[in-house]
Amino acid sequence: MKALVYERPGHRVWRDVTQPGLLEPTDAIVRVDAVTICGTDLHILKGDVPTVESGRILGHEAVGTVAEVGAGVGLVAPGQRVLVSCISACGRCRYCRSASYGQCIGGGGWILGHRVDGTQAEYVRVPFADHSLHPLPDGVSDEAAVLLADILPTSYEVGVRNGGVQPGDTVVVVGAGPIGLAAILAARLYSPSHIVAVDLAQPRLDAATRFGADLVASPQQGVVGLVRELTGGLGADVAIEAVGVPETFELCTTLVRAGGHVANVGVHGKPATLHLEDLWIRNVTVTTGLVDTYSTPTLLRMLAAGRLDVSAFVTHRFTLDQMPEAYDVFADPQNSGALKVVLTRQ
Amino acid sequence: MKALVYERPGHRVWRDVTQPGLLEPTDAIVRVDAVTICGTDLHILKGDVPTVESGRILGHEAVGTVAEVGAGVGLVAPGQRVLVSCISACGRCRYCRSASYGQCIGGGGWILGHRVDGTQAEYVRVPFADHSLHPLPDGVSDEAAVLLADILPTSYEVGVRNGGVQPGDTVVVVGAGPIGLAAILAARLYSPSHIVAVDLAQPRLDAATRFGADLVASPQQGVVGLVRELTGGLGADVAIEAVGVPETFELCTTLVRAGGHVANVGVHGKPATLHLEDLWIRNVTVTTGLVDTYSTPTLLRMLAAGRLDVSAFVTHRFTLDQMPEAYDVFADPQNSGALKVVLTRQ
Amino acid sequence: MKALVYERPGHRVWRDVTQPGLLEPTDAIVRVDAVTICGTDLHILKGDVPTVESGRILGHEAVGTVAEVGAGVGLVAPGQRVLVSCISACGRCRYCRSASYGQCIGGGGWILGHRVDGTQAEYVRVPFADHSLHPLPDGVSDEAAVLLADILPTSYEVGVRNGGVQPGDTVVVVGAGPIGLAAILAARLYSPSHIVAVDLAQPRLDAATRFGADLVASPQQGVVGLVRELTGGLGADVAIEAVGVPETFELCTTLVRAGGHVANVGVHGKPATLHLEDLWIRNVTVTTGLVDTYSTPTLLRMLAAGRLDVSAFVTHRFTLDQMPEAYDVFADPQNSGALKVVLTRQ
Amino acid sequence: MKALVYERPGHRVWRDVTQPGLLEPTDAIVRVDAVTICGTDLHILKGDVPTVESGRILGHEAVGTVAEVGAGVGLVAPGQRVLVSCISACGRCRYCRSASYGQCIGGGGWILGHRVDGTQAEYVRVPFADHSLHPLPDGVSDEAAVLLADILPTSYEVGVRNGGVQPGDTVVVVGAGPIGLAAILAARLYSPSHIVAVDLAQPRLDAATRFGADLVASPQQGVVGLVRELTGGLGADVAIEAVGVPETFELCTTLVRAGGHVANVGVHGKPATLHLEDLWIRNVTVTTGLVDTYSTPTLLRMLAAGRLDVSAFVTHRFTLDQMPEAYDVFADPQNSGALKVVLTRQ
Repeated sequence: MKALVYERPGHRVWRDVTQPGLLEPTDAIVRVDAVTICGTDLHILKGDVPTVESGRILGHEAVGTVAEVGAGVGLVAPGQRVLVSCISACGRCRYCRSASYGQCIGGGGWILGHRVDGTQAEYVRVPFADHSLHPLPDGVSDEAAVLLADILPTSYEVGVRNGGVQPGDTVVVVGAGPIGLAAILAARLYSPSHIVAVDLAQPRLDAATRFGADLVASPQQGVVGLVRELTGGLGADVAIEAVGVPETFELCTTLVRAGGHVANVGVHGKPATLHLEDLWIRNVTVTTGLVDTYSTPTLLRMLAAGRLDVSAFVTHRFTLDQMPEAYDVFADPQNSGALKVVLTRQ
Repeated sequence: MKALVYERPGHRVWRDVTQPGLLEPTDAIVRVDAVTICGTDLHILKGDVPTVESGRILGHEAVGTVAEVGAGVGLVAPGQRVLVSCISACGRCRYCRSASYGQCIGGGGWILGHRVDGTQAEYVRVPFADHSLHPLPDGVSDEAAVLLADILPTSYEVGVRNGGVQPGDTVVVVGAGPIGLAAILAARLYSPSHIVAVDLAQPRLDAATRFGADLVASPQQGVVGLVRELTGGLGADVAIEAVGVPETFELCTTLVRAGGHVANVGVHGKPATLHLEDLWIRNVTVTTGLVDTYSTPTLLRMLAAGRLDVSAFVTHRFTLDQMPEAYDVFADPQNSGALKVVLTRQ
Repeated sequence: MKALVYERPGHRVWRDVTQPGLLEPTDAIVRVDAVTICGTDLHILKGDVPTVESGRILGHEAVGTVAEVGAGVGLVAPGQRVLVSCISACGRCRYCRSASYGQCIGGGGWILGHRVDGTQAEYVRVPFADHSLHPLPDGVSDEAAVLLADILPTSYEVGVRNGGVQPGDTVVVVGAGPIGLAAILAARLYSPSHIVAVDLAQPRLDAATRFGADLVASPQQGVVGLVRELTGGLGADVAIEAVGVPETFELCTTLVRAGGHVANVGVHGKPATLHLEDLWIRNVTVTTGLVDTYSTPTLLRMLAAGRLDVSAFVTHRFTLDQMPEAYDVFADPQNSGALKVVLTRQ
Repeated sequence: MKALVYERPGHRVWRDVTQPGLLEPTDAIVRVDAVTICGTDLHILKGDVPTVESGRILGHEAVGTVAEVGAGVGLVAPGQRVLVSCISACGRCRYCRSASYGQCIGGGGWILGHRVDGTQAEYVRVPFADHSLHPLPDGVSDEAAVLLADILPTSYEVGVRNGGVQPGDTVVVVGAGPIGLAAILAARLYSPSHIVAVDLAQPRLDAATRFGADLVASPQQGVVGLVRELTGGLGADVAIEAVGVPETFELCTTLVRAGGHVANVGVHGKPATLHLEDLWIRNVTVTTGLVDTYSTPTLLRMLAAGRLDVSAFVTHRFTLDQMPEAYDVFADPQNSGALKVVLTRQ
């Protein structure tokens, strides 16, 4: 079969590889029907994730059809349409028992396209299939469902629910890339009074408005003053960090009111400064997190019920064998305008 | 009357001042029967709190007897024994309405001995008396009650409850001064499996053991390894910072397990480094806070019911007119062994 | 001035009474600009609420203008537009300190139009003004705001928040009168997947659809089967009782899934049967409650931000001196089609 | 092997049966080292649980040694000491994914000694071994651990945690049989101010005192007045029902304060009356539940850390082949004084 293989920093290739087979009784083999590319895949290609070895098939998001299951698999059967989640879970460790699947210490967590071969291929072996696949409800399209493999549960769990968004809140989302836009979409599920999107690039702010932000601002345009004014001088109830650099995290701690929440979603490569000399007295809560995907079944039900409209994310569509072009487009959003790209079997 | 007056950094004096009278219909005048000194008072004397003006009477903790009340006061009446809380609260602003009294934006918060004259005096004017005084239950001594003015609710609310301590947890308390010791005492109310106390000084570690720590360690003695071993390699469920310097805060973020809580209680003067390059993926919650004193009535009930034994805190006793000596003793714990000093009317 | 006076069961009169004055330093006198009638007022008129004495001015919902305040009032000043909440609160008792204002044991709770004279008059004395009035934000109309005096916070707090409605839930609202319709509106703030409204009367089911119910059913039309089918056989996540008779409460306990919530909002006059022989094993949570109005400031902010559209509730408008006609219309919804009536000063 | 077999109401026999073998890849076979008898087993013998068929081996609590595991089992291996939990869990259904194992809809729940053969035998087949067995920490005795199979997690989860017991609370436990005594023990983990035990029998009240109740009363001795007096007229913060008849449930709803919790633990065979005509206005929360055993690993850690002393429960000890005598003793606590009996291999 064909797969997208990471060779070394800066080098990826779409080439023939051996089709995967079952290794453990808890494995499933899934034929990939739709797959997407994540910002994390670009980080891997830059060499930022040294745990990814040469020869690894990338990708941790897919929709597919079960081809084969091990003896210990009980949730799914061959022929079934499934979502392949970005998080695999042993299901029985201390973390999995409390639905913290992303923190699995039994061999799961984020392993697909990282520590084992991933989904950007014609077939993928999914370890711990019972806790890593989700049967798709009827009436949910592959293209919509694939967005629930990572970006939607990440923004919902790590941004909106960790941030404790409640009706009437003022929510600031710093960073209006795909994950920030998903946070805007997810925050709206709780009916905040105001969502303020912050980004440096005007096209992203325009996208934020389309996804439901009520106000947009760049950091230079006085977002601190804007949020103060909007909240009677108090600051935001919730600030969601969706970039991953120290400056945006620190901006969030400036924007939040006393008693408010800063929910970090961004993937950081450097430490940030926490201004405890100001914050110690302000009853602020800061959370971090990798997605646990505990919400994925709920989000799938909402998709099936028409309560979640994710169609605006997909800006470009390809077939699987156009993987190299899809990477080029996704890696150059300034010129391509790409948010999410989806590749499907012919 | 006599009072302890802050003159300028390094200078305090116990001298005659005018006895306070009612200024607002919501004021009460309280005769001070017992008072203590807080580490914050020492910070003020060093000049670290520039909002304290010359001539200010210090002190924000007391037990006393109501002498006079304004027309708008309904909770207490002259003759009643009361606790004077470190937090005053208007009772009607957005924060007070959600029991976040420490964040009061209606004129309260930490004002006694800070923005208005405080409790280290024979009489004190207490603004917003209905939300700043607590009637004392029968059978509670002045000496025990005065410890509920600040140190106990602070460690309980900002340390233990913000940290989400639960039965069976492993809790690390970094810093075994009075507030850290109070955090140990308060954590025990939730029956953790292990409390580990961390400090540089052996006498403080000895005190931690007396207050209920199961294990003690200095940072140099490999506390990280100790906590790992105790928790099967995971780290602590809750780490409580009770010092207020960057190193101890950062130690807490190292000691905590994925999914755990860092509860900052220490008063910080400098920023700390938040290692988001490690923490972003670990589902960690960091909280800060000034005490709200929402728990003070509960703690008073527990004191009355014999469920809270605070007697070990008081190492030195004085009369009010020994205020200067009491300050000397409290400011030199290395030599005096002082934890908390209590001064009472003759 | 004129006021609506309860004389004895079945007898009310709109007549001249003495204009109220300040009795306590915490009182305010409010000129009534808009007022509504509650189902509870009809219960009083039937004689169902024996604590209401002859001569009592009815009404516990209003919008008005502050005319005069006592010395101890700090929140509002003469000339200010305010919402008169159905709940008065002393602000300092144990319940008020935890924002359970409806359970106030310091003299508040539901007292207006019940234990003291109410709002269906040209002027009303509001005890505990600081905790019983809410300043109105700009841009909020009297007619919209008056719906936040009782019906909206009741359905939001006692129905939706006690019920723990979450995104993706299936919510059943039993009873589609004004309070049930408000529960539908309030539940939508949390983006449930499905809201099912249940009532005996087709016009009320039609109204439920207009307010946002996705499905409607009468008990005879097999609502149990409908909910089972909708939820894969499990039952509803949340069932909100908005009628107040044993049959509808018991229906809620039948409709709810294992692990689900029954939130009782209805005012009951008789006991219900709790089928513990079935329910003991099903992890069900049942809540009851009088509104606390802790959410009123939030709901007012949402109204000001355009996040809450309550316009569909007001079916009939009158001037204050048409009070008798307004009562006639409100008391006969089958013929008048009345949901809420609003009376305003000319 | 020998096993305790249910034949028909009133008839049980300790006789030879075929030793169980693996049926599914997720099964384990466990050699029983210690086992106990539950009140539910007595109910089955009375014929109260018609889903139990003739020929069924009873028992849902044991400590043992793994003898054999299926291909899909990953948590345990032959030779390992394990706790056999009263709840089996498929681990992958909607309920299991949220740690509501008792409500498993994938074939688990309470099945041992109910729908499949149980633990009162020399060997037991445990379905879904990965989610139904708990490896035992070192230093935990068989006799202590077997009490964590059912009675301790039940009282902790369904009584204390559902009831929301907090430090300083007044907790009433109605019923001082084994499950009520366990609720007293479990409630103490949260440091309530007062635990009041209620029972008809003086020996049980004496036991309650030994387990940590501060006050005891029979319903006839004016327990309502006692609780009122203790709580300044308010009522209990939490009332835990540990009997299972309508009268005791209704007593709990009378004893609880406005805003309090009634946590039902008792197994009921008849409906109770819920006095909604009083309760609708009182912000009361009523919970029911079968144990989920989510807390079992935590309780095991506490046992290993010396934080849970369950030794007082075991009043009688037998060898496995004394099963008939053990049943006789356990079924006659009035004369035998039995709380829990433990049977071990020779």
